Amino acid sequence: MQKKKIAIVGIGLIGGSLAIQLHEKKISSRLIGVDVDASHRELAMELDLVDEIMELDEAIAAVDVIVLAIPVDKLVDLMPGLMDKIDQQIVIDLGSTKSPVVNSIKDHPKRGRYVATHPMWGTEYSGPQAAVRGAYENKAVIICNATDSDSDALEWTKSMYKKIGMHLLEMEAKAHDLHAAYVSHISHITSFALANTVLEKEREEQAIFELASAGFESTVRLAKSNPAMWVPIFMQNKENVLDVLKEHIAQLNRFRESIEMEDHQYLLKLIGDANKIRRIIK
Amino acid sequence: MQKKKIAIVGIGLIGGSLAIQLHEKKISSRLIGVDVDASHRELAMELDLVDEIMELDEAIAAVDVIVLAIPVDKLVDLMPGLMDKIDQQIVIDLGSTKSPVVNSIKDHPKRGRYVATHPMWGTEYSGPQAAVRGAYENKAVIICNATDSDSDALEWTKSMYKKIGMHLLEMEAKAHDLHAAYVSHISHITSFALANTVLEKEREEQAIFELASAGFESTVRLAKSNPAMWVPIFMQNKENVLDVLKEHIAQLNRFRESIEMEDHQYLLKLIGDANKIRRIIK
Repeated sequence: MQKKKIAIVGIGLIGGSLAIQLHEKKISSRLIGVDVDASHRELAMELDLVDEIMELDEAIAAVDVIVLAIPVDKLVDLMPGLMDKIDQQIVIDLGSTKSPVVNSIKDHPKRGRYVATHPMWGTEYSGPQAAVRGAYENKAVIICNATDSDSDALEWTKSMYKKIGMHLLEMEAKAHDLHAAYVSHISHITSFALANTVLEKEREEQAIFELASAGFESTVRLAKSNPAMWVPIFMQNKENVLDVLKEHIAQLNRFRESIEMEDHQYLLKLIGDANKIRRIIK
Repeated sequence: MQKKKIAIVGIGLIGGSLAIQLHEKKISSRLIGVDVDASHRELAMELDLVDEIMELDEAIAAVDVIVLAIPVDKLVDLMPGLMDKIDQQIVIDLGSTKSPVVNSIKDHPKRGRYVATHPMWGTEYSGPQAAVRGAYENKAVIICNATDSDSDALEWTKSMYKKIGMHLLEMEAKAHDLHAAYVSHISHITSFALANTVLEKEREEQAIFELASAGFESTVRLAKSNPAMWVPIFMQNKENVLDVLKEHIAQLNRFRESIEMEDHQYLLKLIGDANKIRRIIK
């Protein structure tokens, strides 16, 4: 595949980790970082995530590919104006919700230059210092509404993700947002709520710290995730997230009832049903 | 410390993993396995977890220390009769709830021979094949109602855990059960309920499998845990578990409301509060 000059807009966890891959897999001939946060810009240079820092407009003019790794509310605000400014550059976003960004430039004359993607990877940390080597490998990336993208833009984007080691799935934006609510967004909400439950009820923090076992850590670790990233995701995917959240609260109420009633058989069945997740998660 | 002949009653995940440590840390002169399940007995020998298999009564007569690693309902049934049969042996249990087992032999003439413990370690797997090397190391073990144990029994038990590499905490059984509801039991319920939510709502399992990212895996992995172990824990710790579960549902409802009302500020605050878990979990 042809190496290209690439700008990464938003050099935090997601953009920074992609930058490392673009360098290491020799996908970029030059990497330009764009970030509204001065400390992120400095850190991105210090950590060698990018070759150079530019302002957004300068970067747009200087590169072949623009990768957007910013919170999804900022993304939707930015897209129409950005698409006005490009010529033949490829624009790729990495947002966790897809319908709002796709819809934001649905009828734009340059729509074909844009490829909507969601690489299914992240950690609970944020900022350039959270960027890690080897991210995205062996994970899925979803490409949404692929037929609306120009074939050269689509093919180059697919090649980029394949070279990083991701496996590609195509899906309509609407279907993506529904699935993402189940497999990602709800996990974050349960983890945030669990953290608040424990912090609310348990004031003797030393006790938690000492007692917290591996099980607690794994269920609560997502609660460290960045609000600036997650609030817009939940808001943009409001309907799907609320559906799944209501179902989840109903499921928790079943556990509550079975324990309240001391209904061993029902509780055994609920846990037995949950065990079927083994079919999905090894 | 003096090596002893030790019987492990229940050679599954918990008992089997302890057996490996007792062998490797040279704490046992001989290890005897007891299990009601014939396939567990065979596997425990095949996997070299124990030196020999015996029936319970035979084992009681043959050893210096009896370690009980069975579900907490079975434990409470077994204890009074077991204590009737011992002479100077030390009896140690590893159960996840402590008040019921402690109360089951509260006034027993041999009470002093018993040490109530809860090593804070486990995985979502079960059976002898799930036993792992290096388990328990650098984790906390809680010793409950220590002053009710004879000093020789208590000291030997503490030495055993220290030699394995655990750090010791002492606590009343009642306080233990309260803390355990927060840092362990509720995590399992949220994970079971999350698995059921996803399995209920999402019929296209291939989609989940492909999309499931690291976040989903970590929050849902406890949902694979063994019902035979967890149903009795929830039942025995009913009051504490229900208190925490109600609080957790209330917390989830706050997330639901903030998303429904599109109240960005409230949702930012809820997630910001959850982020404080960083003080506890690095």
